[in-house]
Amino acid sequence: MFFTSDNAAGAHPDILAAVARAAAGPAMAYGSDPLTARTEARIREVFEAPEARAFLVATGTAANSLALACLCPPWATVYTHEGSHIENDECAAPEFYTSGAKLTLIGGEGAKVDADALTAKLAAAAPHGIHNVQPGALSITQASELGALYSPDQTARLAAIAHAAGVPVHMDGTRFANAVARLGCTPAEASWKAGVDILCLGATKNGALAAEAVILFDPARAREFELRRKRGGHLFSKMRFVAAQMDAYLTDGLWLKTAAHANAMADRLAAGLAATPGCRLVVPVEANLIFVEMPLGLHRRLIAAGAHYYVAYGGQDETGPDDAPYVVRLVTSFETTETEVAQFLGLLG
Amino acid sequence: MFFTSDNAAGAHPDILAAVARAAAGPAMAYGSDPLTARTEARIREVFEAPEARAFLVATGTAANSLALACLCPPWATVYTHEGSHIENDECAAPEFYTSGAKLTLIGGEGAKVDADALTAKLAAAAPHGIHNVQPGALSITQASELGALYSPDQTARLAAIAHAAGVPVHMDGTRFANAVARLGCTPAEASWKAGVDILCLGATKNGALAAEAVILFDPARAREFELRRKRGGHLFSKMRFVAAQMDAYLTDGLWLKTAAHANAMADRLAAGLAATPGCRLVVPVEANLIFVEMPLGLHRRLIAAGAHYYVAYGGQDETGPDDAPYVVRLVTSFETTETEVAQFLGLLG
Amino acid sequence: MFFTSDNAAGAHPDILAAVARAAAGPAMAYGSDPLTARTEARIREVFEAPEARAFLVATGTAANSLALACLCPPWATVYTHEGSHIENDECAAPEFYTSGAKLTLIGGEGAKVDADALTAKLAAAAPHGIHNVQPGALSITQASELGALYSPDQTARLAAIAHAAGVPVHMDGTRFANAVARLGCTPAEASWKAGVDILCLGATKNGALAAEAVILFDPARAREFELRRKRGGHLFSKMRFVAAQMDAYLTDGLWLKTAAHANAMADRLAAGLAATPGCRLVVPVEANLIFVEMPLGLHRRLIAAGAHYYVAYGGQDETGPDDAPYVVRLVTSFETTETEVAQFLGLLG
Amino acid sequence: MFFTSDNAAGAHPDILAAVARAAAGPAMAYGSDPLTARTEARIREVFEAPEARAFLVATGTAANSLALACLCPPWATVYTHEGSHIENDECAAPEFYTSGAKLTLIGGEGAKVDADALTAKLAAAAPHGIHNVQPGALSITQASELGALYSPDQTARLAAIAHAAGVPVHMDGTRFANAVARLGCTPAEASWKAGVDILCLGATKNGALAAEAVILFDPARAREFELRRKRGGHLFSKMRFVAAQMDAYLTDGLWLKTAAHANAMADRLAAGLAATPGCRLVVPVEANLIFVEMPLGLHRRLIAAGAHYYVAYGGQDETGPDDAPYVVRLVTSFETTETEVAQFLGLLG
Repeated sequence: MFFTSDNAAGAHPDILAAVARAAAGPAMAYGSDPLTARTEARIREVFEAPEARAFLVATGTAANSLALACLCPPWATVYTHEGSHIENDECAAPEFYTSGAKLTLIGGEGAKVDADALTAKLAAAAPHGIHNVQPGALSITQASELGALYSPDQTARLAAIAHAAGVPVHMDGTRFANAVARLGCTPAEASWKAGVDILCLGATKNGALAAEAVILFDPARAREFELRRKRGGHLFSKMRFVAAQMDAYLTDGLWLKTAAHANAMADRLAAGLAATPGCRLVVPVEANLIFVEMPLGLHRRLIAAGAHYYVAYGGQDETGPDDAPYVVRLVTSFETTETEVAQFLGLLG
Repeated sequence: MFFTSDNAAGAHPDILAAVARAAAGPAMAYGSDPLTARTEARIREVFEAPEARAFLVATGTAANSLALACLCPPWATVYTHEGSHIENDECAAPEFYTSGAKLTLIGGEGAKVDADALTAKLAAAAPHGIHNVQPGALSITQASELGALYSPDQTARLAAIAHAAGVPVHMDGTRFANAVARLGCTPAEASWKAGVDILCLGATKNGALAAEAVILFDPARAREFELRRKRGGHLFSKMRFVAAQMDAYLTDGLWLKTAAHANAMADRLAAGLAATPGCRLVVPVEANLIFVEMPLGLHRRLIAAGAHYYVAYGGQDETGPDDAPYVVRLVTSFETTETEVAQFLGLLG
Repeated sequence: MFFTSDNAAGAHPDILAAVARAAAGPAMAYGSDPLTARTEARIREVFEAPEARAFLVATGTAANSLALACLCPPWATVYTHEGSHIENDECAAPEFYTSGAKLTLIGGEGAKVDADALTAKLAAAAPHGIHNVQPGALSITQASELGALYSPDQTARLAAIAHAAGVPVHMDGTRFANAVARLGCTPAEASWKAGVDILCLGATKNGALAAEAVILFDPARAREFELRRKRGGHLFSKMRFVAAQMDAYLTDGLWLKTAAHANAMADRLAAGLAATPGCRLVVPVEANLIFVEMPLGLHRRLIAAGAHYYVAYGGQDETGPDDAPYVVRLVTSFETTETEVAQFLGLLG
Repeated sequence: MFFTSDNAAGAHPDILAAVARAAAGPAMAYGSDPLTARTEARIREVFEAPEARAFLVATGTAANSLALACLCPPWATVYTHEGSHIENDECAAPEFYTSGAKLTLIGGEGAKVDADALTAKLAAAAPHGIHNVQPGALSITQASELGALYSPDQTARLAAIAHAAGVPVHMDGTRFANAVARLGCTPAEASWKAGVDILCLGATKNGALAAEAVILFDPARAREFELRRKRGGHLFSKMRFVAAQMDAYLTDGLWLKTAAHANAMADRLAAGLAATPGCRLVVPVEANLIFVEMPLGLHRRLIAAGAHYYVAYGGQDETGPDDAPYVVRLVTSFETTETEVAQFLGLLG
């Protein structure tokens, strides 16, 4: 019953096998190998984007920060949700990679950027011209930090608002697979067809060891990206080992299968929790994240029975009575088994 | 006959197996797992440094740049050999991570920093006080870019010069294993006992997929390092997969066996080349790098026969007569086979 | 009737005269001249701080940014009011000088940091350790952007909260003179005695041409400050001309006289406006800034009659009826005359 | 007999008077005043460059660093003479403002960049593509740090080499006036007509208090420059006081008169020194800098008699015999009088 994070999962056997296969014999370093080329080609194919360029890195923070640095100059600001990972969990990596740009925080339900709030912020941007940071980029997260999804239409609306202000769009797609698996749209529809300029496509949380792809739908920024990646220390000499992961991930729809499994396990947990007296889902479950308010007594019982998960927010009183409300976060992954879900649900009764 | 670089080698089976083993089951993310802890403990043991802290990253550029950023403030300069990797091959990553420090270039045979030249540079540092960059750090590379080694005494002399000027010492140990395997000293003798403050211990070139350890012999800088690593996007969520590599690398002396093998293969190549009419080793071969001047005709013959290696310097005339001198670089690795060495030597006759 | 900003004023004759006097004959450059030394000594005397170090720059943005860079590492955050100058009007200069630190915004009436909100933010800081930016510095503005003042007790309370969290305190004292002139306390009581670690003491808005002093009450940071100032291009070769301004400013209490005059002129305007039907002071007037809500018709009349001032907030409807409320900002300065104040008040009737 | 530096001079009376005149009455802040507009117009006129944009700052380091940041991305390098001010005397300000670009050092007589050496460096640039810093900008200094001048033809040749490699040209014109006064060419011929893209036109060393103009002959970079200037804290609120200096400086050829005077005084000193037994000019005197080797005994006599100047290089033995050679630097300025020159020459006999 390990629901702390999809980061806590291991690696998918198919991906491990691909890494092992890639180890045989010599290969040109720094991405000049055939496997890296094949992986880029596969990304283009999966995204129906023959002109796109795709580059591999190994962490989501690297992917997001390098992408934002290509979109937002140092004297500008990135519009993002106040609950986003780039604001809260990357220790100012975006500020580092952009050489000191700002992040402007926007509200919105489900940790999704609210379109009207974005419109208002952009309308009020740089009231004193060069005295102010300039509009730089919009960054949205798919699925959001609360597990909510942007429909293609919602993404397109936000992108249209941003583009109208001359602002390009970055999508933090750490859990992009979970979103696509749920939305039933194509990868292209969830990204460039909806106006996304750069997508950071995560694989690590969904079965890889450490692999993320930064997809530049406009290839004009490719050279700058490559220089920034090298300068950030994110160009791997034995790139084939990162490529092998991403290649296997995207082969035969593996990425969508593992994501769909994680989503399905989340659905089961959510259904069971929603049906439990005193429990309430804080946000609808659309991906593999569950935020649920439960009686503190139930929480205590679950932990005592060996369930692992995180408290959703800091500052909650852990010493209250058994019927006090308490909000926790559960995350499923490609590794989550029906057995451990059933075991957990069995504890709710 | 693949001698382009040790980066072109695959991964050692023992390391691959360790990665596969590490994939089973859940583990706390971001280095809070038992394998990461065990790896740090192993590094302390191998280096006889119970107080040291060791942190894992996945590229040499990340290791070097993060280490230098902890040692050198933005208004200071890193003393380094003019042929060093940090000067020539990291696209200003040290400048990026230090937020704009300089590199001050020093000469020396075999791409090793000359002690007298270092003394002179330090004596002449900051002649106009705050108008000048201040002395920041010394960075030396073991083995050097030309494959030369610093004996423990040589390292100690440089470190003493640096420390006398208040300057800490960084060692780029991308090929530290090759050095230790050859020098016959302990890892401690080649590093902290000789005055090295931070060692970047490479594993990637010597059998790993992507793993480097930054060893801070003074743990006071550990917290800053961790924050800088996170901010640089170099903190892996599934850290166990990096740790598994480094752990296997250091287990039962695997790292020194693979390095000794690479060195031995280099010795054979060097001996054969040195005995070949018209050939001359540019620098003595001490690690797994061979720089050799040969007749252009021989070079042409080798390439035609299927040998792969790089030209040592840009700007050499490739169109000269067969007896024109031509300098090339050969690199051996843990994967280099006796067969391919013999095949290559057979072409020299 | 020029009330746009105290930046729009010229220079005080005594300060101009001091600059002219300083022009005679040679002097050592870069602050090694006697006038610069005398100015630092005078600052120490005025602030009863014999150990303090004081350095001159020429803009408030430079002063604030350099000071914050000495207090806040790149992986930390500056707590500041959401309406502060460093957040809104310096085009990310603090982010630039700190090499990418964040600003964390806090509310509070009168554009003053609310103590409880600060306490809450510090208590919630860095919930995930190195994944988050760390607490870096507190920055407060005296007088605030709305012209409100921190009493010594209020400053001391905020500083105590900050210091308890290991966070040093920066005071943006662009209008520090106006505050001291009003509070009736000593400069020391308004700064270091209340816990301020670095004060940026403005002179430009209050009679100088371009002169600001950064006062480090803890001299341990002096060397770093000097290097950062030089590296930022803010070390003047003919420093005597900046020093002459600050020296004259602080001589015989000139700075407090000019500030008291500006405050008095603001009081007159405020009293007249408060007594005008339909007008309401948005915040009590404590320094030389007046924020007043007035009928749009009155605003139109004032502008038509030749009054110059700024609208307080963007986004107000300028096309409404004459009785629609409208908020404007008036600023007085050392140059504001009783005549122009009377002229303005005469228009209110 | 004050020949330490032109920075040690005071301010020209005409410039002081202009500053005093500018102090009267209100003016819009941050450069929106008529005097700033007039100054920019005057620069365009003087340089016959109706499309150019010109921006004012107050230090040479700010001017150079901001200009280079507009020309050279963080992953590139600035080609400059190894003796240049930006390399040796700005405490890594160019690295700071460019967010971590490099400086690549080039030799050349008289501290002037050698054209062949530049050609060679550019030809050898980035041999490994993205692993290396890219060619960024060329920076030359007029007059050079040794007082040598680039003729328009020499500038044009360097600019042609740079432009052929896609590299724009920055001219550090701290002593541009001395160069133009000597060369007898127009300001345009010495700058944009010879291929200079951005000129930093100094006034401080030649009569101003603190004023430098950054002239962008290509206005496309103007917006970026303005944002960088603000972000660097170099946008003055009371800009009229900087503009007043530059305006007066360029009015009725004042700048060329003061420069010609300094040059003439240097000529007299040089002629006298060249005619003195045991003395030798190290480089021909073309501007207002004199580098002369003299017997140590003469140096001792001059200092004892009250002459002030700097030793040219660190590390010279001051304890040698009277006939040992010793190299010193003399600098004249607009303030240097015929009397003090005659007094100095009288000591040589």
